[in-house]
Amino acid sequence: MPDHAISPTRAADYPEWYQQVVRAADLAEQSPVRGCMVIKPHGYAIWERMQTILDRMFKASGHQNAYFPLFIPLSYLEKEAKHVEGFAKECAVVTHHRLELSPEGKLIPTGKLEEPLVVRPTSETIIGAMFAKWVQSWRDLPLLINQWANVVRWEMRPRLFLRTAEFLWQEGHTAHATREEAVEETLRMLDVYATFAERDLAMPVIRGPKPAAERFPGAVDTYSIEAMMQDGKALQAGTSHFLGQNFAHAQEIKFAGPTGAEEYCWTTSWGVSTRLIGAVIMTHSDDDGLVLPPRIAPTQVILLPIHRTPEEKDTVTAACRRIEAELSAARFGDEPVRVRTDARDMRGGEKTWQHIKQGVPLRVEIGPRDLAAGTVSLTRRDRPPKERTSLALDTFAALVPGLLEEIQQGLFKRACDFRQRKSVRLDSLDAVRAFFGSDGGGEGKGAGGFVHAHVADDPAVAEAFDPLKVTVRCIPMEGDDEPGPCIVTGKPVTRRSVLARSY
Amino acid sequence: MPDHAISPTRAADYPEWYQQVVRAADLAEQSPVRGCMVIKPHGYAIWERMQTILDRMFKASGHQNAYFPLFIPLSYLEKEAKHVEGFAKECAVVTHHRLELSPEGKLIPTGKLEEPLVVRPTSETIIGAMFAKWVQSWRDLPLLINQWANVVRWEMRPRLFLRTAEFLWQEGHTAHATREEAVEETLRMLDVYATFAERDLAMPVIRGPKPAAERFPGAVDTYSIEAMMQDGKALQAGTSHFLGQNFAHAQEIKFAGPTGAEEYCWTTSWGVSTRLIGAVIMTHSDDDGLVLPPRIAPTQVILLPIHRTPEEKDTVTAACRRIEAELSAARFGDEPVRVRTDARDMRGGEKTWQHIKQGVPLRVEIGPRDLAAGTVSLTRRDRPPKERTSLALDTFAALVPGLLEEIQQGLFKRACDFRQRKSVRLDSLDAVRAFFGSDGGGEGKGAGGFVHAHVADDPAVAEAFDPLKVTVRCIPMEGDDEPGPCIVTGKPVTRRSVLARSY
Repeated sequence: MPDHAISPTRAADYPEWYQQVVRAADLAEQSPVRGCMVIKPHGYAIWERMQTILDRMFKASGHQNAYFPLFIPLSYLEKEAKHVEGFAKECAVVTHHRLELSPEGKLIPTGKLEEPLVVRPTSETIIGAMFAKWVQSWRDLPLLINQWANVVRWEMRPRLFLRTAEFLWQEGHTAHATREEAVEETLRMLDVYATFAERDLAMPVIRGPKPAAERFPGAVDTYSIEAMMQDGKALQAGTSHFLGQNFAHAQEIKFAGPTGAEEYCWTTSWGVSTRLIGAVIMTHSDDDGLVLPPRIAPTQVILLPIHRTPEEKDTVTAACRRIEAELSAARFGDEPVRVRTDARDMRGGEKTWQHIKQGVPLRVEIGPRDLAAGTVSLTRRDRPPKERTSLALDTFAALVPGLLEEIQQGLFKRACDFRQRKSVRLDSLDAVRAFFGSDGGGEGKGAGGFVHAHVADDPAVAEAFDPLKVTVRCIPMEGDDEPGPCIVTGKPVTRRSVLARSY
Repeated sequence: MPDHAISPTRAADYPEWYQQVVRAADLAEQSPVRGCMVIKPHGYAIWERMQTILDRMFKASGHQNAYFPLFIPLSYLEKEAKHVEGFAKECAVVTHHRLELSPEGKLIPTGKLEEPLVVRPTSETIIGAMFAKWVQSWRDLPLLINQWANVVRWEMRPRLFLRTAEFLWQEGHTAHATREEAVEETLRMLDVYATFAERDLAMPVIRGPKPAAERFPGAVDTYSIEAMMQDGKALQAGTSHFLGQNFAHAQEIKFAGPTGAEEYCWTTSWGVSTRLIGAVIMTHSDDDGLVLPPRIAPTQVILLPIHRTPEEKDTVTAACRRIEAELSAARFGDEPVRVRTDARDMRGGEKTWQHIKQGVPLRVEIGPRDLAAGTVSLTRRDRPPKERTSLALDTFAALVPGLLEEIQQGLFKRACDFRQRKSVRLDSLDAVRAFFGSDGGGEGKGAGGFVHAHVADDPAVAEAFDPLKVTVRCIPMEGDDEPGPCIVTGKPVTRRSVLARSY
């Protein structure tokens, strides 16, 4: 057994380490279709956990799920000029609706469509068209809709979970009578994402508005949550857009107010995707593989029976069943503890390492010697693999929810500490250049961290950072104003922004 | 108010009645994209109920969810000849991966793909390609996978839920070491579907194998569950396919057995779709709109506060909150009762009729007079709209689970009785012709019902029934063998089949 289960280590080659963690944890793999991934059962189970929690939060804040067509007519896309510009370069286009076999046995597309259809890269235009039908009066507002769906953005350099041609996501779309309500909704959903990221994914995030150049195509304001990965890079983990009346004008989403006068709606949209799985991997995992925060771990406790003789097997199996029943009756975070027994007939070491690599928070070994002594042997995924604790069999189950909470909080704290160590406040362009390395730095080594600096929302700023491969991630909303001059243009700005390399 | 909320009635024009129920219950509507529907919040909430229950059943029988690409390369489809034949005529084909704006401001597809991609009509080929990678040894079997996804089958005559170009479904795909295990799996999932249809949808179904001509393209055997709609037509509500080694050969899904010898896997696939929503509508609804079986009703109990003065409003609202809390704590079928208060400020009659049309099983009116008398006023969706029962306020909540169960069972019994009345056993082709009407009958009137008759699995049979627009739905598995001569060919067969017109 090498020192670590994953080769290369994070320090040696971060991007390759990421691929190897995904593979070792059996989360996903490339499909034969260029840029499209297959999400394997363990990866999909994590997505299901994310969906369950988010869906509950969306519904609790008054949203309803619905489903809209996969296809969008070109004429719909054409209606919002900036929106088209933003997405045209990455659209999969359906042009035919049947296939015929050629004499050589090859399939040939036939049945050419009068108007080609785009596979949705996002659904503002098609959902807007429906909203225009549904909204008549102010009584129909606010309209608060969410969709769980697949989307396609043609991607030339795919990377599992982080950048794929097809991905799974949710997209919220809402329409409001006033600007204020729409802005409030935009910020409410940003907060939902931030709460979910920090409480459930144990991933600290910075929330704030993006500079103009980084806005969603067609939005008035885009807000994001930005997380720091273990190589110091930023990952945009969710976005919430205030669309103003741009799409309402393009799609004619109008309502009659209480006085009968017709007005355009104010709309928002917001989304998170399977990219979050990549974010979780890169926030918590180590050189032994995946580390999962208990709240989103499909299995929180794995029971590992150990036995040699048939008699031992009977005793140990019976004990596992009892413990499993007892733990399933315990609750962690409003839900039953998710416990499973791995009774597969294979070498114990190999089996244990599978669960380490898959990130199961708690492993419990149950053998005849432990049982005779009235104990179980516990190992935690957030501690070194060999660090065992012996716990009394009859009180163990009652301790599990507390242990899971301790791991959840511990992972969050570790990520917060890491981010703090890798964050600096800098007050000159030269200092920023020095921080990131004047050569632009290599992936994994010079990636740096987060720089908090004063910058104006100005093309000159983006230009100055471009050679460093650094962008302005957002203007953090937390904390007080701290005015200062832009380190590029000298213009006065009221708050610092976060600069970083990013995924 | 007319006699009935839905016009036309079922008797007057069944197909139009169906459209009007979908509209009145606010379940779905046509989108601007030809053949694609928008599933509105109420329709989607029913689908979510179906998903929740089925997903639990799939997981309980050892299946895991995963996700596979939306796109399938043409070369994959070409591998299984019958499969291609079956789906080529209805495939949406992606041929380009970007758009450019023409000088006239029109979007033009560019970036032609080397190999066109089909939007999945079903995923045997792409999932089979992954299975071929994942299965190495007999230890990797059985492989039991399910996918929740959207699929596209180009549809020239779309009808909401029943036939749409895009629909939502689940598709199970499994691989096994032996023929026996694969057949067992095929039948196990058919039983899961039948149990779900009868227990949860309150919809009696007949399960059995399809004749050769009606098999899934590429399958060795296709089994279906067939339900009877209120016009006497059959609706295929779910299918389970034994694929033999056809796809394993086409995709090279092989495993090394315990002796090391390489063998081809035996595979199955099975699916149900949003079509089930159409089936539920047509099984239970009446001339006042949708009727939902409590187990899949998104709202099982709607509380309707009635008040005139502000004081009345306070008292009534407080009472509704108490009742809502009490009911949410009660359980029906392993889950909390789903109760909601409709406090919207609108005319009481209009509000009540909305819930009738939307199929809410129990409506509870709560007014100051009731409260003073210590009662609530209850109406049931399975009884006439005006049939009220007065129940004691303090014991009412405890009765609700029993009432919901009574409605669930009552709907099932009513559907069983209806099916029995509309089913006949016939022993000659002339009798079958007379039953369905020699002119082929009109939709809605002469649709007939189910004919149980002896027929051989022979093209001559399909030909004989074609002018009647009747097909052999399946050979029911329930009951004993009853040999007899085929009413078309005279060949001896062991059991009767079910003949019907169908959706």
